[in-house]
Formats: sequence, C-alpha cells, structure tokens
Amino acid sequence: MTAPKFDVDPWGLSTGSLDAECLAHEESVFGLSNGHVGWRGNLDEGDPRGLAGSYLNGVFEEHPMPYAEDGYGYPETGQSVINVPNGQIIRLAVNDEPFTVRHGTVEDHARRLDFRDGTLSRALTWTTPAGDAVEIRSTRLVSFEHRAVAAVRYSVRALTSPVEITIESEVLANEPLPTEHGDPRVKDLLAQPLVGLASTVSGSSATVVHRTRESGLTVATGMEHVIADRSEAGEPSAVVQTHAEGDVARTTIRASLRAGESLDFVKFVGHEWSARTSVAALQEQVGTAVSEAVREGWDGMLDAQRRHLDAFWSGADIRIDGEPRLQQAVRFALFQMHQASARLEMRSIPGKGLTGSGYEGHTFWDFEAFVLPVLISTTPRAAEQALRWRHATLGHARDRAKLLHLEGAAFAWRTIDGRESSGYWPASTAAFHINADIAVAVVQYVRATGDVAFERECGVEMLMETARLWLSLGRRDDEGAFHIDGVTGPDEYSAIMNDNVYTNVMVQLNLRGAAAAARAHADVARDLGISDEEISAWETTADAVHIPFDAKRDVHPQAAGFTELARWDFDSTHPEQYLLHDHFPYFDLYRKQVVKQADLVLALLFAHEAFSYEAKDRAFSYYEGITVRDSSLSAAAQAVIAAELGHLDLAYDYLAEVATLDLDDLHGNTEEGLHIAALGGVWMAIVCGFGGLRDGASGPTFSPRLPPRVSRLEFGVRLHGSVIDLDVTPSHTTYRIREGSALRIQHCGEEILVGPDGEVRMPNSPLQSAGSPPAQPRGRSPRPAGRAFSER
Amino acid sequence: MTAPKFDVDPWGLSTGSLDAECLAHEESVFGLSNGHVGWRGNLDEGDPRGLAGSYLNGVFEEHPMPYAEDGYGYPETGQSVINVPNGQIIRLAVNDEPFTVRHGTVEDHARRLDFRDGTLSRALTWTTPAGDAVEIRSTRLVSFEHRAVAAVRYSVRALTSPVEITIESEVLANEPLPTEHGDPRVKDLLAQPLVGLASTVSGSSATVVHRTRESGLTVATGMEHVIADRSEAGEPSAVVQTHAEGDVARTTIRASLRAGESLDFVKFVGHEWSARTSVAALQEQVGTAVSEAVREGWDGMLDAQRRHLDAFWSGADIRIDGEPRLQQAVRFALFQMHQASARLEMRSIPGKGLTGSGYEGHTFWDFEAFVLPVLISTTPRAAEQALRWRHATLGHARDRAKLLHLEGAAFAWRTIDGRESSGYWPASTAAFHINADIAVAVVQYVRATGDVAFERECGVEMLMETARLWLSLGRRDDEGAFHIDGVTGPDEYSAIMNDNVYTNVMVQLNLRGAAAAARAHADVARDLGISDEEISAWETTADAVHIPFDAKRDVHPQAAGFTELARWDFDSTHPEQYLLHDHFPYFDLYRKQVVKQADLVLALLFAHEAFSYEAKDRAFSYYEGITVRDSSLSAAAQAVIAAELGHLDLAYDYLAEVATLDLDDLHGNTEEGLHIAALGGVWMAIVCGFGGLRDGASGPTFSPRLPPRVSRLEFGVRLHGSVIDLDVTPSHTTYRIREGSALRIQHCGEEILVGPDGEVRMPNSPLQSAGSPPAQPRGRSPRPAGRAFSER
Repeated sequence: MTAPKFDVDPWGLSTGSLDAECLAHEESVFGLSNGHVGWRGNLDEGDPRGLAGSYLNGVFEEHPMPYAEDGYGYPETGQSVINVPNGQIIRLAVNDEPFTVRHGTVEDHARRLDFRDGTLSRALTWTTPAGDAVEIRSTRLVSFEHRAVAAVRYSVRALTSPVEITIESEVLANEPLPTEHGDPRVKDLLAQPLVGLASTVSGSSATVVHRTRESGLTVATGMEHVIADRSEAGEPSAVVQTHAEGDVARTTIRASLRAGESLDFVKFVGHEWSARTSVAALQEQVGTAVSEAVREGWDGMLDAQRRHLDAFWSGADIRIDGEPRLQQAVRFALFQMHQASARLEMRSIPGKGLTGSGYEGHTFWDFEAFVLPVLISTTPRAAEQALRWRHATLGHARDRAKLLHLEGAAFAWRTIDGRESSGYWPASTAAFHINADIAVAVVQYVRATGDVAFERECGVEMLMETARLWLSLGRRDDEGAFHIDGVTGPDEYSAIMNDNVYTNVMVQLNLRGAAAAARAHADVARDLGISDEEISAWETTADAVHIPFDAKRDVHPQAAGFTELARWDFDSTHPEQYLLHDHFPYFDLYRKQVVKQADLVLALLFAHEAFSYEAKDRAFSYYEGITVRDSSLSAAAQAVIAAELGHLDLAYDYLAEVATLDLDDLHGNTEEGLHIAALGGVWMAIVCGFGGLRDGASGPTFSPRLPPRVSRLEFGVRLHGSVIDLDVTPSHTTYRIREGSALRIQHCGEEILVGPDGEVRMPNSPLQSAGSPPAQPRGRSPRPAGRAFSER
Repeated sequence: MTAPKFDVDPWGLSTGSLDAECLAHEESVFGLSNGHVGWRGNLDEGDPRGLAGSYLNGVFEEHPMPYAEDGYGYPETGQSVINVPNGQIIRLAVNDEPFTVRHGTVEDHARRLDFRDGTLSRALTWTTPAGDAVEIRSTRLVSFEHRAVAAVRYSVRALTSPVEITIESEVLANEPLPTEHGDPRVKDLLAQPLVGLASTVSGSSATVVHRTRESGLTVATGMEHVIADRSEAGEPSAVVQTHAEGDVARTTIRASLRAGESLDFVKFVGHEWSARTSVAALQEQVGTAVSEAVREGWDGMLDAQRRHLDAFWSGADIRIDGEPRLQQAVRFALFQMHQASARLEMRSIPGKGLTGSGYEGHTFWDFEAFVLPVLISTTPRAAEQALRWRHATLGHARDRAKLLHLEGAAFAWRTIDGRESSGYWPASTAAFHINADIAVAVVQYVRATGDVAFERECGVEMLMETARLWLSLGRRDDEGAFHIDGVTGPDEYSAIMNDNVYTNVMVQLNLRGAAAAARAHADVARDLGISDEEISAWETTADAVHIPFDAKRDVHPQAAGFTELARWDFDSTHPEQYLLHDHFPYFDLYRKQVVKQADLVLALLFAHEAFSYEAKDRAFSYYEGITVRDSSLSAAAQAVIAAELGHLDLAYDYLAEVATLDLDDLHGNTEEGLHIAALGGVWMAIVCGFGGLRDGASGPTFSPRLPPRVSRLEFGVRLHGSVIDLDVTPSHTTYRIREGSALRIQHCGEEILVGPDGEVRMPNSPLQSAGSPPAQPRGRSPRPAGRAFSER
C-alpha cells in the first residue's frame, strides 16, 4: 500500500504525509478537475513528484499500434492522453536556495482537499540549509465557473530573518508521462508530443500555443500573475519579468522580505484546445478566459467555487450516519465524480477521469454502466453531454460495424475520440455488450430526466443503430431462438463464448428500448428510415433472445456451457498470484470457472426484471464462490445484490471495499489515477443496495434496508423527471419530492404515491433471515468493513 | 498468378521466362538446398531479383515482440531467419558494360532445375548496348555430399567480337529480407543483422566471419575460385584479385577474350555457423570445407551429386502414369522435400524449407504432421534428426509448460531454436495439439523404422512429457470422462473450443504411445521417474477421453458445440473475399461453421482407427460443405479421405491442387518460399489416398484404388523396419519387399504376407459406387485436375 492515512473529516481529505512512496497516490486523490481541465495534485514546486499531470479532456496523441501478428480489423492507430503544458509549477528559491521538501527542514507540512470549497490547500514551514525559515502557503482550484481556468494563490513569509525570494512560475510543455509501450515509435511520440507554434508575453502574462504531431490538436495555455500590492504596505515592490521560449513560459518574481513580511500572489492559468480553431483564435480565447478570471479575482473565484459546490451538495449529498470514515469516503467519491463531470461539453469521462494517465486516458463501457446513473441524479447536464458525445461518435461506430461486416453501429471499446483503440480483440471487439450498455444508458437517462429533446435528437438514432447491430450479430436457431455467439461479457476472465447472459438480457432491454423510442417518436423514426416491420422485428427478437439456464445446477450460466467448465483451483492459488491475469495465461483463465468481475451478477442488477428472486439468490451464491474481484468494477454490483438478498453485512463489506479502493489504494494503482467507475459504484452500492432502488418497465421501486452499522441514510434520486429524497432509518423510510411532480413508486412491494407537497413515511420491510452469506474463493473475501474503516 | 509456365519434363523444371513479375516465384521453385545450406534461385548477377536469399538452417536473429496490449505468458522475443552472406553473386561486365537482363539484348534465356543432377543451370546470349555478344552459362549446386558447400560453374564466351571481361564474384553480407514488422526496432535489427568479426584473403579465396547482434550466432562464409587453365589453350591468363572489406568479399577476374574464346571458372562457397565454436575454429572449418570441395573439383562434385540423387530416387521415386505434368509435379515435390531434409543435423525443416523467408523461417507442427511421414519412407535419417532436434528443445518446452502452470512439456508453436515465438496465443499457445502431433510422429517413426536407439534415447521421454502435459491440461468430469477445454485445433478459423476432436483423438494416440513405450523400455521409464501408476493413468485416461458426437446431426462436431454454431454465409461471400482471414475479423470466423483447413477430416486420417467408415463418410460430407481451404494444409487430407470414400475424381482434383500449389502459385505467395508441408501432402495424397496406406495399432493396410486418369502407380513405403514396394494398376496391386524382412499387411481388408523374395499380386477391390461427391462452399471446389494439368 502506498496510501497515507487521511484524517477523518466529513468534508475534506487531509494529510501531513511527506512520504515519497505516497506521492503519486496523493497526486491522484488530491487531483482537481472540472471535467474539462484536470490538474493532478503535484507539489507546486514540481519536484519531487510521482507523475506530472495536467490534462484537457479530449486532448491526446495518436500512435501506431504494434502487433506481433496482424489481423483483419485490428486498429492500426492508438490514442494516448498527453500532458498539456503544466501551469502548476511555482518554484521558490530563498536566498538562492531552491525549495524542495527534500532539502533543508520541512515542518508542519499539510495538504487538504476541501469538498465544499473545491480547493487543494497546502501549508508548511521550511528552513533552508542556511537556517532561514519561511512559511509557505498555497491554495489552488480548478474553476467550476470559469471552465478553462485554474488558479493558485501562493504566499511565502519570512519568519526569522530577512530573505531574498525568487519565484519562477512556469507553464512547461512536453513533460513526459509514463508509457508501457515497448515500441519506440510510440515512446518517441509520447515523450515529446507537443510542437510549439506561438507564444506571446505581455507584462506578467504569457500565452503559448502547441500542436500535437499526429492527432493535430491545438492546445493553448495562458498565465497571468497578480501580486498583492506591496507598496501600500510600505514594502518594496517585487520585480517581475516574464519570458517565453521553447517549451517554457516563465514569470520570475523577485522580492526582498524582512522577517514577518510576505510575498503573496495569484497565478491564473487558462487551458483551451481545439481540433479546428485557428491558432490566433485559440490564443485569443485562452487570453480572454484568463483575463476574465483576473477580473473576477481570487476571492471572487473562491466564492463562485463555493457557491457552485453548495448547489451541488444540496442536490447530490448522501448522508450516511454511522462510520465517519464511510461518510468521508462517500463524499470523496461524489466530489471526485463531480470534478470529473461538472463542465463536460460533448465529452465523456475517461476511466481515470482527469486524475491520471492510466488506461491511456481512454473511456470505456463502465462510464455508461457505473458513472452515468450517478450523474443522472447529481449532474444531469453532464450525463446528457456524455451521451451526446457518444452520439457524436456514431460515424466512427458505423465505420467500425461496417469493417466488421455488421449493420448499425459498433461503439469503440476504448477510445478518446470515438475511434477504436483497443489492441486485444477477445476482450474488446468481442465485448459487444458495450453497445447495449450505451443503449440502456440512453433509455435510463431519458426515463429519469424526461429529456425528450435528447431522445429525439440522439436517443432514437443510438437505439436504432445498436438494435441493428444486434440483429446482424445474432442469429435465429431452428426453433426460432435468438443467439449471440462468440462474444465476451463484462467478466474479462472469460471470452468469446455463446449467449453471455449479461449481454443477452441487456440486448433485450436495448431492443425493447429501441422499439419503444421509435414508436414514441414516429416522425423521427420515419426520418431515420425505421419501418414498422423493423420495429416489430426488434420486439419479436427481444422476446426470442435465448437466456441459457443450467437446469442441472439450477442456475444461470454466465454464458452457454460456462457452468460445465472446470472450476478454477482456488485452493492451490496463492494470495500473491492475484491479480490472476498477471500470473496465469488467458487461455487458462478463459477455459475455467473463475470470474474477474461481476458479470451474471451485474445482469441481476441492470436487468433485474429478467430474473426471479430465487434465481438471483441461487446465482449470487454460485458466482460468489468463483468471483475474485480482480477488477474494481465488481464489488459494487456484489454489494447491491448481497443487500437485495439480505446479506447486509456482506453488502456493507463490499461497500467498504469500493469506498476505500482509491483512498487506501487497494489495487495498488491509484497512482495512475482514480477509478472513477468504482467511485460511481459507491453511489450504486448505497442507493441501489441499501436504498434498494430499481427502475424498469414496471416503474421505480425502493426496498430500503440499512446494515447494522448505519443508523440513518439520506439521498436523493432523479426519477421520471422528478427528484425524490429518501430519509432512511432502520425502521422507516420517509419520501419527499424535492423537484418536479408526484411520483408513483413501490416501497418494499407496496405502491405509494409521493406528492410534491408533504412527505410519505413508510415502515421498512422487516429483514427475513437470509441464511449465512455465500462464501468467496479462498482469500478473496472482502476486508470486513469494521477493519476497512478503522485500520491503516 | 506470378508463375511462369514450366515445360513438361519428367525429371526437371525449366522455363525461358524473363518476366520480372515471375522472378520471386522462380527463385523459390529454383531454390537449391541440402537442408543445411539454402540458396534461392537468384540470378547470378544479383539484379534484378525478387528476394535475395541465402540461408543456413538454424541461423536467425532475435527481436522484441511488440504487443498493443501485453499479457501473461506472451513471448517477449521473436525469431526471424536472416540472410547469411550471399555467395551466389557473380557480376559480369563486358567492355565495362555491366550485364543485367534489363539492358542490352537477351536471347535464348533458359533456366532448368534438374531433379537427378541436383543442379540449376542457366544459359543465354547477351548483346551489349554497344553490340558485343557473349554467351553466358552457369550451373550451380548446393552439395548433398559436402554439407557446407555450394558451387557455381560460370562461363562467358565472346561470340562475335573481342571483348574485355570483368567478373566480380562476391560474398555479400547484410542483404535485407522483407519484413512485415512495423516496429522499427525489429526492422533495424533485421536490416543489418550481421556484425563483421574477421576476414581473411588468400589468393583467390576469402573467408568472412560475422555474428548476429542479439542471438549471438557466428556465421562463417568462405569462397574460392578455380579458373580453367587458359594458358594451356594458348590464351592469355586472367588477372585475379581478391579483397575483403566491410560487408563484402570480392574476387575480381579480368580477361581479354577474342571472338570464340571463353572464360570458365568455378566458384566454391562454404557456409558454416555455430552458437558456440570460436571464430578461428569456424573460419578453419569453412576453409577446410571449401578446400575439400576444390580438391574434389567441379566434375567430382557433379558426379557425387548425381550419385546421391540416384540413390535417393531409387528409393523415393513415385511413378505415376497418366498426366505428364502430374508426374513432373510429384517429382518436384519429392525433390524439394529431399533438398529441405537431406543433410539435416539436429534441425527441423522450416515451413518454407530453405527456399524463402516466409513465416520468418519458423518450424511448425505441420513438419511432424505432413513432412515427417514422407521422410520416414524416403530419408529416414532426416526424420530421425528432426525428431532429435525436437527432443533437444525439451528444455524450452518444459519451461514453457511451467510458465503456463502445466506439467510436462509444451512445445513451441512456431520457433527456430525451440523457444516459443508466436505472437497470437489463440492460434498458437492454445493449439496444444502440436504436442500430440510430435508425440504421434515419434510413435510413427519408431514403428516404421524400428529405431530402438532413438526410442530409448529420445522417444520415451518425449512421449512421457507430452503425456504429462495432457493429464495436467485436461480434466475429468463427474462421470469420469476426460475433457480438454479451451484449445484450438488445426483449423485456424476456430479457436479456444472444448474437446476438439482432432486434439482428443491425437491425445489418445499420444497417451497410448507413451504407455506402450514406457512398458517396452521399463529401465528407461524407471530412469525417467515414470511409475507404473503413471503408466496406468495414461492408459485409463486415453480410454476416458471424451470424443463429442452430435447425435442430432449424426456427425462428429469439430469441437463440442461446433455443429450448433451458425453456418458461414458462403452465398454472400464474394470470391475476392478469400482468404477469409484477410477480409473478415477472427471474432466472426471463430463463431461460425467455416473451416480453413482439414481438422476433423485430418483426424479421420491420422487417427483412422477411431472412426467407423460410416462416421467418416458422414463427416467428410459435412465438412466438405464448410471447408474453404484457405490453408495449403487442407487439400491433401481431403484427397486422402475422398479416395477412401470412393470419390476418386474429387481426390484427384485435390491431388492436382496440392501438386500444383507452388508450381502454379495458387496461393499467390510462393515467392516467400515453397510450402514444404503441402509438398509432403502430395506424397500423402498419393500413398495414403490412392495407395490407401494406413498404419496403426492393428497393423498396416493398403486399399489401392486408382483414379480414372492414372494408369499405373509405383511407390515404396517403410513399414516396421522393412521397405515395401507397390505396383498398382487399375485392377491389381503387386507387393514386393525391397529391404528388410517379410511384412504382414492387409490388402483391401484381406491379410497377406509379403516375403522378402518374390512378389504378391492381389486384385484391387472393385470400386463401389460412392454416390455423388459432396459439394464444397460456393466457388471453393478444387480446380478440376484436367484443367490444372493443362491450363495456365
């Protein structure tokens, strides 16, 4: 573990850690972002650092994709997120002694991420090797209001003796990011991805413009410094000079401080990019963004940040009483998801958000599956923008389908701009379920928000193209059953099997959603060329989809024949052999019953109406015994189904796992960025697990049921155009409409109407004994929640 | 098609073609080799050329293997055959005008590969742009007697006017070979693989020594020139100078010729390599090899070459009366297989022999499956050497098994030195059948030759290690049946399926062979640590191997569930979409019923005793309908089974296809080298198809049956330590023991004893009507033999 122990704090995350081993992890969890600009929590002075990270959502470089053996349809071009010019850097020298935490003496070092202020603050005192002591404070933010702008307030105070201060505040391009690519072509491209095109300097501001070599994206970065007026205080003015040359723009500030005096300034940084806009226009754009921020000033930006987050929290907060660390972790998850999404514009959220370069900055299916449901309730505009981005990639998806000799559209398994960038088809191209995941997300978004404009402009077409894909991908057998052969489900320890149940039940939802949308918007359907016959074909095919069942074992197989495979030899697998795919070949994982991440169990959640309670119970028991959770995408779904089946302690343990995954670095790779979808899983585990939320063809239902260590749970959910708040205690649930009109819901099986005024208070169903919870493979049980929230 | 039309000639292949488009193809079919040294049929002057090619069996360079996405167990290092220094080059200038066929006027250009002389000869007249005419003749051989030596006799005669002749005869290192590797690391390594270590010059001889950068192999090349004594003829002596520098050693010969006079010399070239020997020792070794060849002289080498081939043909020839082009093609196949194998020493035969760099010079399973059976009858020493090489790679194979967490040994799917070099595991690592192919080859070799020394020194261990592999790879189900899940059979349009029938029946032979060998050599078994219990386990497991059968369709599925997959839409597949894998993604090929190459049908041949006649009949009909023969390894097995089932015309068409595959360049890639296994298939189609040879646990059987257009067929086969000759006419077969003791065989179901003296003449079974032959997918029927042997 490389994570520090964070202080318990309901609205923030703070640590005094200065452990070099923890630095990269801290940079991820202390990352600031608004979904457009992302700054990792690098130390202001840039050194030491884990991984330098400054990102713009959508900015990437292309590179060749090398294969040991080529094959038809393999993508030839990959995409990798790159660092945009780094505006974080503020180097300090005291009496010519450069400040780093590795030299001299650092005391009282503290950093805090504030969930309500939206700032990362830092304070410390530093005594130079020569014995001069200064106090350093910095506070930074990535603005939710000024989409292109980040800012840092930086101050240094002489404590004991007069000192000469030199500040070098930079925008630095072409900082390399880690690459695992062996191909030197890729290494070279990613080592120096930016070519300088232009730079301007004016007073203490500078603008630099770069372009990526291969992907041809233009990136503009501006900075401006506002120094607290020192002459008023009777102090000598600071000397300020700004230069820009090569990969660096630098403002140098020199000042002489007597003991007790301080230098205090704000650095405003603007980031913009475009694939089309001219250099001059982009330069102008970033300059304007910075100027407006300067005009608003630091205090104004701080206020706006707070106001934005107050509004966010008033709608999005989940109050969970019991374990303070859980409450903190839940708010961390919600805050980071908001940071990843707040200012999305026709973009999606990468697997790591804008907190690291893991997964090369790619977006996957788990955005639609795990993150979008949260955004629908907390930030519906971001959900819409992300789905509109998917819609905008339909051209690439149609091209991909055509290349594969399929109808409709095949969305990219991993991508930044919509083009397929995966290099291992059994776990990408064959994982066609992403298309149903996106389609079902469209249905969910429209159902929850009632956004008819989106449905008409994008939704019908997305549902149509995915429905067409399925009809061309599957086939009818002699008895008329519809099969989808040779595909890979969510579980990446299986591949290329027939009739993956998850895929097939999601396809049913996709086809039915397509038919319903086309019937609801007949004019749109007509314009898209959807005939009545086609709609009928979607409906009859949905009904004909084969859902395999193993009658002998009385359980759904993950895919046809899965339950007949040999069971993985868990007893002979050593703890250090997990993650299994790092220690065993795929051929062996694929042919045995071992599940990396919830697959059939995820189907029990996402297509909950397709399974009886008894089928869920049997399936959960069966798959718990073979699921190893080598993926961060597993525990949340397991938590939800465990809760549904009454295994509340197990559900709570799973919630604890997913809630501490990044804070405690459980997967050992948080340094590459946060697991955004797992953070979405925190919401899912609570709202769908302990709140028991399901929504489907037969309307929304809640079955609230708290685990023993939670005394009260409050959250709100967007449903059918309204927002409903729940206040759950062990015995009762109180429903209130916060926004919109009355809602007819089921509470623990009982239909109730919650009106826009007043509240409805209902008793929770008493917990029936669920029997002992099912066992996990040896050594793969979740860490008990009690330990998760107390240890470390 | 890029193949010229060759003259019909029972003992040679000749053409007057000078079509640049055909050059690369001609270089492959005109290649000379002895299994150790291989020279492509490049023009002496080196330009124009298709692909320069000079190979030493076993010499390769290592290179990194790039993957778009890494995985556990993926080989990190690849191997590629490289060009050893090229000793073919003899450049000629006439009155300073350099000779190439592209300048001046070339007349009567003719080249001929002689199957009995073992030479490639060439003749032409060339008139320079200035009008001076010369006659050029060259004859080259790669010696069967002097394993390290090739030689060229070269003469140039002034025809009409006195001319000044300059010859530059070279050894040229680092000639690049084509690479499809996109990774520039690989390109760079393979572009200049050799580093010069030493060179010596002495008179008109030179030796150069190089080493490969990464694989560390030392390669020595020597040359010596013997010029016909011109002073005796009263002609002025030639002026000879030899230099060696950098990548070139060059002997320059200058002579003045009056009209009618000629310059005539022999170039002797020696090639040696070693992974261990010192530079000096290797230099000495190649020098000695060249000196001995010089001492023997050109005429002596020619005589030895002819004697060697006379002996070969007396044992190996197949006489097939009917189509002269078929007779020619059959002898071409036998000759090229002999060239690929004659002087093997602890090496195998690459997929392309030493005729090209296709498949990177790798050896595959098809050597044991398709080539070894021929060698057993024609060149048993080569068969032994190749199997001993496999045995020598057991260390690598054990390492590979261990990496895969398996017992025993897992032989490399593609390799030069025994280490796995494949970059796509679904069609390599998962294709475990190679281990059974090798094991069954061991059983066949020992059964045919009675080579007990090999069996004891190598065979038992190879059978043991492969048997151990299977027991760890497979698993017993609740009913005790033994299954092998998640493997790939010979058909590369399927992958990762359960209970591939081919694999499973071969595993039965492997396990039974292992048990029998261990019981026969109890002392060897004991030394290897084989217990009686282990032997029993092999036997009981062999009996328990599950062979899936589709009762509904009354046919064996290629693997479990195969016959339930969707059938490929052949009717919508355009002719230009073959080869399918160049036009469709693997995911789609894998999930449908479409067969690249005989898989179940190959099982009907290799494990013939596991299937009833009726099962074979049904299976052949079924699989003919879905087999597209996108691999050169398919037609031969289809020919054999077609013949067995009485479809003699179809069998003959398949024989014609495999016999003309390289001569007519049916796959369009003969330029990369000959398809050695397909050439082995020619023998197989004739001997096992029309001769009806099978050998197995119940002894050897023949069921000779000639197709209508063959009037007589004569061949010999090695069986149980003897060699038996067959003389087959449409009505009768005459058996004679050529070598060894009496043989008890079955002829058309009747048991007969063929004694060492005299002959047994038996009537062939009359052909029962087999009904109409099964149909192939649209457009994938073989070219009718009549057209194959007349057209082009």
